[in-house]
Amino acid sequence: MTAFETDLMAVAGRVEPALADLLAAATPEPGRVHAAMAHAVLGGGKRLRPYIVIKSADLFGVSEAQAMRTACALELVHCYSLVHDDLPAMDDDALRRGRPTVHRAFDEATAILAGDALLTLAFEVLADPATHPAGAVRAALVAELAKAAGAAGMVEGQMRDLTAEGRFSDDGRPLALGEEDVLALQGMKTGALFCFAATAGAILGGASEEDRARLSRYGAALGRAFQIADDLLDEEADSAAMGKETGKDREAGKATLPVAIGIAAARRRLGAALGEARDLVTVFGSRADALTAAADFAGNRSS
Amino acid sequence: MTAFETDLMAVAGRVEPALADLLAAATPEPGRVHAAMAHAVLGGGKRLRPYIVIKSADLFGVSEAQAMRTACALELVHCYSLVHDDLPAMDDDALRRGRPTVHRAFDEATAILAGDALLTLAFEVLADPATHPAGAVRAALVAELAKAAGAAGMVEGQMRDLTAEGRFSDDGRPLALGEEDVLALQGMKTGALFCFAATAGAILGGASEEDRARLSRYGAALGRAFQIADDLLDEEADSAAMGKETGKDREAGKATLPVAIGIAAARRRLGAALGEARDLVTVFGSRADALTAAADFAGNRSS
Repeated sequence: MTAFETDLMAVAGRVEPALADLLAAATPEPGRVHAAMAHAVLGGGKRLRPYIVIKSADLFGVSEAQAMRTACALELVHCYSLVHDDLPAMDDDALRRGRPTVHRAFDEATAILAGDALLTLAFEVLADPATHPAGAVRAALVAELAKAAGAAGMVEGQMRDLTAEGRFSDDGRPLALGEEDVLALQGMKTGALFCFAATAGAILGGASEEDRARLSRYGAALGRAFQIADDLLDEEADSAAMGKETGKDREAGKATLPVAIGIAAARRRLGAALGEARDLVTVFGSRADALTAAADFAGNRSS
Repeated sequence: MTAFETDLMAVAGRVEPALADLLAAATPEPGRVHAAMAHAVLGGGKRLRPYIVIKSADLFGVSEAQAMRTACALELVHCYSLVHDDLPAMDDDALRRGRPTVHRAFDEATAILAGDALLTLAFEVLADPATHPAGAVRAALVAELAKAAGAAGMVEGQMRDLTAEGRFSDDGRPLALGEEDVLALQGMKTGALFCFAATAGAILGGASEEDRARLSRYGAALGRAFQIADDLLDEEADSAAMGKETGKDREAGKATLPVAIGIAAARRRLGAALGEARDLVTVFGSRADALTAAADFAGNRSS
């Protein structure tokens, strides 16, 4: 295990009880909604988005307590999106991180409600004075997370993803998206939350507009690398298993960069995204080592 | 039409374009998510919750622009809850206000996403400096609306409603809830948003804790009256049609006060709730006439 992976796991070990505490405080009694929320949120995940919040907050001397609450709010939004995306009406997934998805472990109604409650709780956490003493900072966090998650961000990205699969066309055939369309889609579906992760620390720490913009671009580049790596893994896992260069994303008509421009070109775009992420944070010197390592990790995953 | 109904309709006429403007600003282009959000939000409804926000804000000299944004945020949350509650996995309703529900007009995935986007947009609207110059006020509005809508409020109320129907019991038989259980359930499912409606103006206007608590209790009483009136209408519509004292709520195992304690006792509770609502705002004198009339309207509806 690399030093980065050790650190990532250590942070994840602190995120887990913080999430559990927030869930416990948010529900009046340990009923069905609570159980489904806990199933969705606890016991797994690399917690990469929280890690980026915490490490970018470190650049500006933000307390871990403030950074942790913000990191947890973001993770709640990420987990809600997984619960809803897994639903039968969306991607219809039975397993997530090796466990039954929420609608399988409970039922569809409970999964919809638990997702709604997680999304709502994220904003409640950010708006609480414990997250930051200045109301304007709390409101800015709420506004930025809402923009990243909503109809101009993650929700729109998921809708375009479903549309690209041909879900809403008369013949049900996937659309052939070009590189720009794929990047725009993934920038909304995946990139927007990574942008929030990287800028939240700057908002908490009262950083300059310049630093905030720089970190937003770092988050976008990291998100791009993360998604291309994911799509390449799908292609390659399938290549190895089936002896041909088409993955299950390709067959499902998923909008991916390897499908749009080919594997070799996608690999070059991945390298460029990682270089961009690295360059953007060199200004912070060695204090940004964790952010650089996080980008490399996101872009070079083997799982 | 009464003077109150004329005023309610006039306010609804101003809420409608304000909602349309917020939707237009929130979506990057008029795509499928936007169309589904607009279908859910525009072109109907009495806008009783926005009316209460605006009239309670009037008590504290809040500008109509601030009150209107807050009123619209609340209406977005109300509309999201209708979209998700109507889904096949929940109440499986085909019609809403005489038009197809969102999942019928579009599809289930789009309805889930549009609901998610409406909920998210509500918090974005509240957190925007246009809603109030003080960040602490904006954050307080976000926190209060999140509490009202989330796992200790509306979401938990809907979960208990589904549970009461016997949805999650082995034999699928409805539970027999007592009066306290029904009131607690409806206080979360319906009452919490009315409490927010009545207190939001006090938050915007920097009212005293005493006035805020008073208006919160007014909102709770109004919400109770609203729900009992709704449940009585169901019983009576059915009584007239079928010549017996059991409504479709009763057959569906819905948790209602007429089912729990009988029609006559429920009618007495309705009268008491209206008296309580009226008493709570007498301290504001004639300036609270609109709030008194709103409670009477909520409790004496014939549709």
